[in-house]
Amino acid sequence: MRRLKAIISYDGTQFSGYQVQPGERTVQAEIERVLAIMHKGEKIKVTASGRTDARVHATGQTLHFDSPLAIPVDKYMKALNVQLPRDIRVMSIEEVADDFHARYSVTGKRYRYIWSCESVQSPFRRQYTVETNGVKPNVEAMQEAAKAIIGTHDFSCFCAANTSVKDKVRTVTTLQFEWCGEELHMVIEGNGFLYNMVRIIAGTLWEVGIGRRDIENVELVVKSMNRDKAGKTAPPQGLYLEKVFY
Amino acid sequence: MRRLKAIISYDGTQFSGYQVQPGERTVQAEIERVLAIMHKGEKIKVTASGRTDARVHATGQTLHFDSPLAIPVDKYMKALNVQLPRDIRVMSIEEVADDFHARYSVTGKRYRYIWSCESVQSPFRRQYTVETNGVKPNVEAMQEAAKAIIGTHDFSCFCAANTSVKDKVRTVTTLQFEWCGEELHMVIEGNGFLYNMVRIIAGTLWEVGIGRRDIENVELVVKSMNRDKAGKTAPPQGLYLEKVFY
Repeated sequence: MRRLKAIISYDGTQFSGYQVQPGERTVQAEIERVLAIMHKGEKIKVTASGRTDARVHATGQTLHFDSPLAIPVDKYMKALNVQLPRDIRVMSIEEVADDFHARYSVTGKRYRYIWSCESVQSPFRRQYTVETNGVKPNVEAMQEAAKAIIGTHDFSCFCAANTSVKDKVRTVTTLQFEWCGEELHMVIEGNGFLYNMVRIIAGTLWEVGIGRRDIENVELVVKSMNRDKAGKTAPPQGLYLEKVFY
Repeated sequence: MRRLKAIISYDGTQFSGYQVQPGERTVQAEIERVLAIMHKGEKIKVTASGRTDARVHATGQTLHFDSPLAIPVDKYMKALNVQLPRDIRVMSIEEVADDFHARYSVTGKRYRYIWSCESVQSPFRRQYTVETNGVKPNVEAMQEAAKAIIGTHDFSCFCAANTSVKDKVRTVTTLQFEWCGEELHMVIEGNGFLYNMVRIIAGTLWEVGIGRRDIENVELVVKSMNRDKAGKTAPPQGLYLEKVFY
């Protein structure tokens, strides 16, 4: 038996999220289905760094699982990719120490959020970005407002109401906007993220960018620790889990 | 009544091609359905520069149709885009002379064909490129072999057998390979293309790129005027109709 760490990429469009849910197509269920085939029906439990919601994408989701198969890791990866549906790909796989844990060993995560600001959104980007109907936000204002978010705070204001997590103090280390052609990317890194946190931050800063919320207001939102003071939860298809740090 | 010229982009993944076919989801049927709504049920016939096959994409397909509606063209475009499914977008629309014909007035077309040559194909590119399983072809050889195709030839060798077109002489003016990261693009321009011509050229030059066919062989293929001498028809999802010239 050995512990394997896998980095996977998935197009979230046709999944009801990462985590297994009865009757739904999920990323975890697909991977466990394929592992069971490779292990002659034996159930191999997969642990991820965390969940992602329906339609949310990942380019660097990270998993661990324990396997008795002694095949080399590159062949292991190929065997998985041959059986997996094409909207999930294993990008790398390596053997790790037995105490590595995809969820508990996490030291940080990086997410990306993408808006497409062309006057007409490319049909090829409809599932991978959020359309703004040609609206180009004031990115300097968004970047300025982001200063109130960077750092260590109780982020209750950016946490979906239906969560059981008690401690909502997290540290955001990076929150950066960059244009990539006519697409606006928000890159955010931190030691951990609450449920819907990135999408609520994206939605709140977007409102700053289009002049619907003052830059100064964002600091008040953070201090309020009140979800209702923040902006709307931005749509799922703009969000990517890009990297998990250990 | 006025004649309108529209440039449209579509993600071909979920279409059974451009042209109307009973019982199938097609690009033309979607556009004519929306135009009928805009014209209170009146059927407005749409004419395109040509067909595209199932799963083939377009970034610059061009259409014309005649409409009695006197609304400004930018509002016309917005009205169409509001009603159209999101995998079809009207990118521009303009009023043209009555003798403009989207098919008969064509003077040339540009297509693009894309292979993704990463060791593991991104799940986000599975419907938009052709996977090579990490194989990186010899592009210099492909470019050299392309010289036998550029120019005016009877292209019977690159035409699907089931075609009714008699005159198979066409002129290819540009056939260029370029890397875009780990994706290989083939850009081809000419005054007209036979059925499956771009995909058969892509399939044939690919064989040169991976050493399965000699550079010199391509000239013999062209001279043979025999479809069976050429390579396989490359898969549809790598192909884009990029621009129609008038």
